[in-house]
Amino acid sequence: MNLDTLYSELTLTLDTRAKLALVVLDGLGDIATKGQGEVTPLEAARTPNLDALVADGCAQGRMIPVAPGITPGSGPGHLSLFGYDPIEFQVGRGVIEALGLGVELRAGDVAARANFCTLDSAGVVTDRRAGRIPTETCEELCALLARKIKKVGAKGSEVEVRIQAGKEHRFVVVFRGAGLEGPVSSTDPNREGLPLATAEPADARSAGQKKTAKAVADFYKKALPLLGGQPKANGFLMRGIAHQPQIPWFADRYRLKAACLAVYPMYKGLAQLVGMTKLEGPQTIAEQFERYLAERERYDFFFIHYKYTDKYGEDGNFEAKKRAIEDFDAALPILLRKRPEVLAITGDHSTPCALKSHSWHPQPVLLHSAVSGSDKLDRFTETGANLGSLGLFEAKYLIRLMQAHARMFDKFGA
Amino acid sequence: MNLDTLYSELTLTLDTRAKLALVVLDGLGDIATKGQGEVTPLEAARTPNLDALVADGCAQGRMIPVAPGITPGSGPGHLSLFGYDPIEFQVGRGVIEALGLGVELRAGDVAARANFCTLDSAGVVTDRRAGRIPTETCEELCALLARKIKKVGAKGSEVEVRIQAGKEHRFVVVFRGAGLEGPVSSTDPNREGLPLATAEPADARSAGQKKTAKAVADFYKKALPLLGGQPKANGFLMRGIAHQPQIPWFADRYRLKAACLAVYPMYKGLAQLVGMTKLEGPQTIAEQFERYLAERERYDFFFIHYKYTDKYGEDGNFEAKKRAIEDFDAALPILLRKRPEVLAITGDHSTPCALKSHSWHPQPVLLHSAVSGSDKLDRFTETGANLGSLGLFEAKYLIRLMQAHARMFDKFGA
Repeated sequence: MNLDTLYSELTLTLDTRAKLALVVLDGLGDIATKGQGEVTPLEAARTPNLDALVADGCAQGRMIPVAPGITPGSGPGHLSLFGYDPIEFQVGRGVIEALGLGVELRAGDVAARANFCTLDSAGVVTDRRAGRIPTETCEELCALLARKIKKVGAKGSEVEVRIQAGKEHRFVVVFRGAGLEGPVSSTDPNREGLPLATAEPADARSAGQKKTAKAVADFYKKALPLLGGQPKANGFLMRGIAHQPQIPWFADRYRLKAACLAVYPMYKGLAQLVGMTKLEGPQTIAEQFERYLAERERYDFFFIHYKYTDKYGEDGNFEAKKRAIEDFDAALPILLRKRPEVLAITGDHSTPCALKSHSWHPQPVLLHSAVSGSDKLDRFTETGANLGSLGLFEAKYLIRLMQAHARMFDKFGA
Repeated sequence: MNLDTLYSELTLTLDTRAKLALVVLDGLGDIATKGQGEVTPLEAARTPNLDALVADGCAQGRMIPVAPGITPGSGPGHLSLFGYDPIEFQVGRGVIEALGLGVELRAGDVAARANFCTLDSAGVVTDRRAGRIPTETCEELCALLARKIKKVGAKGSEVEVRIQAGKEHRFVVVFRGAGLEGPVSSTDPNREGLPLATAEPADARSAGQKKTAKAVADFYKKALPLLGGQPKANGFLMRGIAHQPQIPWFADRYRLKAACLAVYPMYKGLAQLVGMTKLEGPQTIAEQFERYLAERERYDFFFIHYKYTDKYGEDGNFEAKKRAIEDFDAALPILLRKRPEVLAITGDHSTPCALKSHSWHPQPVLLHSAVSGSDKLDRFTETGANLGSLGLFEAKYLIRLMQAHARMFDKFGA
């Protein structure tokens, strides 16, 4: 028997009074290097409120986001936290990019990362980034394309097209229509001096991929003439062309009505992929926690996302990452005013300041509930979490532990 | 998607300046028993150089060589360290034995463990070990067989035969020829009082196994008459008859050009199985490290094997195992003169003195790189490793962690 099936069969309806909160400090995990005094930002930060939570009794551990040594992007990092195997449920770059730009996707939509490029008179790519045109130019060109191209394809099997500008030369194209499927190959020749490639189905027998490839070709046929007069951005490349995967709905999978409290579009988009309700408005972690208090009775599960730990990790700014943790800690008492019955605080991966990027180092996790017991640790830190009762485990199991702590699982066997 | 495929897709070509070293103290792991003062040899040893390495910042953990409770032989222990699932990639006993005796095997060669036995006039086995004849007798008999039998089989489909004496009654027979395959069943009746069994294909439809079974039968037909005059060793048994498996080449799998610095034939053979280059000559760990310095620029990855920790563990000699660790530690500064960018020090399994044999107890592992961070432990020991950030994990992932620390993996997903 598949383990997911077993979990599903054992899942009981939640006692409606219990609330579960998954609080994600993006890129929280870090490493202790000599250069930064052999402490991590989490260890260096003053965190009286987290400390008090730990003193109240928590279980700690560390989580492998995907597999040993694998560094996840935000997509796999969050899918794993939402309990989906990130290798089984892969989300195309186009879809992630579209979500990141705040485009509302439906299941089956095909999305592509696109960027303007420069073509010579023979159609050969001379600059794959169109001289990195300013964002305003990109926005103007995307508005032009969007105004002129609403649909492609023959009558009766038309495909809707949506275009959303990104930064500099980047944008996103979404195709919506019955039977579309991905992936299809990129139109990027990968180096200058070659003409645009043709998007081809990954599987030549797939009717859905053929339809998508045709939609891409039709889109080029309409769009290229519109860009003809552009000095630099007279062409574009499309990559990561894939459809939004069928992901089992969060509510069906866990029997939990879930809400997302995120500020950045990417994380809202990822929550939306699994069917969480987006609660819009809050801009700060304090406002997100306030909103949790306000919405507490309407949902079972809250995904609360805090971006700044990752942002400053990416900058390699130890002090700022430490301060971001302290700011988070200062807001925490708002959440704890009506403490979730099951509270997990963790990251979606590590973003060590020394690496200035996401990494594979297992992120620390803290789990608090009436049945979490106490690991008798003083604080929530990477080094402390190494000693915790949760051990080292795959992040996709965190939500199962949360369900267990919410007493949602029946006994297995007699 | 298979995890190996994912790793493969994410693998980047190594920045050629980075060097990876996997240093294996065979059977390093041990257990702390009351009888030996509740410390392990690694804990009891004076290891100033390992201590300094730890102080410089290391990640530690413990590794399960195969699966919980499974005690590996040297074959699975090392295949696991080389990143191959030791259950998926099984190497026949004959192949391991041949490697252990220094026989050079090619892919497709079939090898068998053999040993002399005593047969009565009716061909019944009366002593399965031929009274444990002295090694010299075994060597003489093997020389006789090797001189008289170069090939078996009919003209046009001949099979080459190689014979290599081992200790006491033991020897190895290798068959080399197009289309040979294993496994075929043993000729050992498993108890005295029965005649020799016939080697049969494991799968009756396999032409390759049939050919091997025929070669074994032909070999008996030629060899038994040659042994007719022997008082004790007038017959022999053949077991573990299997071909050298097709194992994906180390260089293809990890994009690392690998060299082996081992003294004992078995470990050279295991390295050769996966395509590492054997660097011959060094006899001591100091010489092995010196050779690493000399060859450093020619390879990306060095497998350095140290035997004595296992040897003294097998003897149950705590003091000698402790001293073997101290000798290793004394040589370590040579390696560190040009410190590998990614350095792992571990065992292939535990060989606790109290057990006088290999065991299933997870072996400790230390990983040092610019991005290993520090676990803030004082020393490298079994008890300390229990507290490390690497946690408890399957040994087959160690090489993936080493690749990650060498920054060889692309980010997974956006």
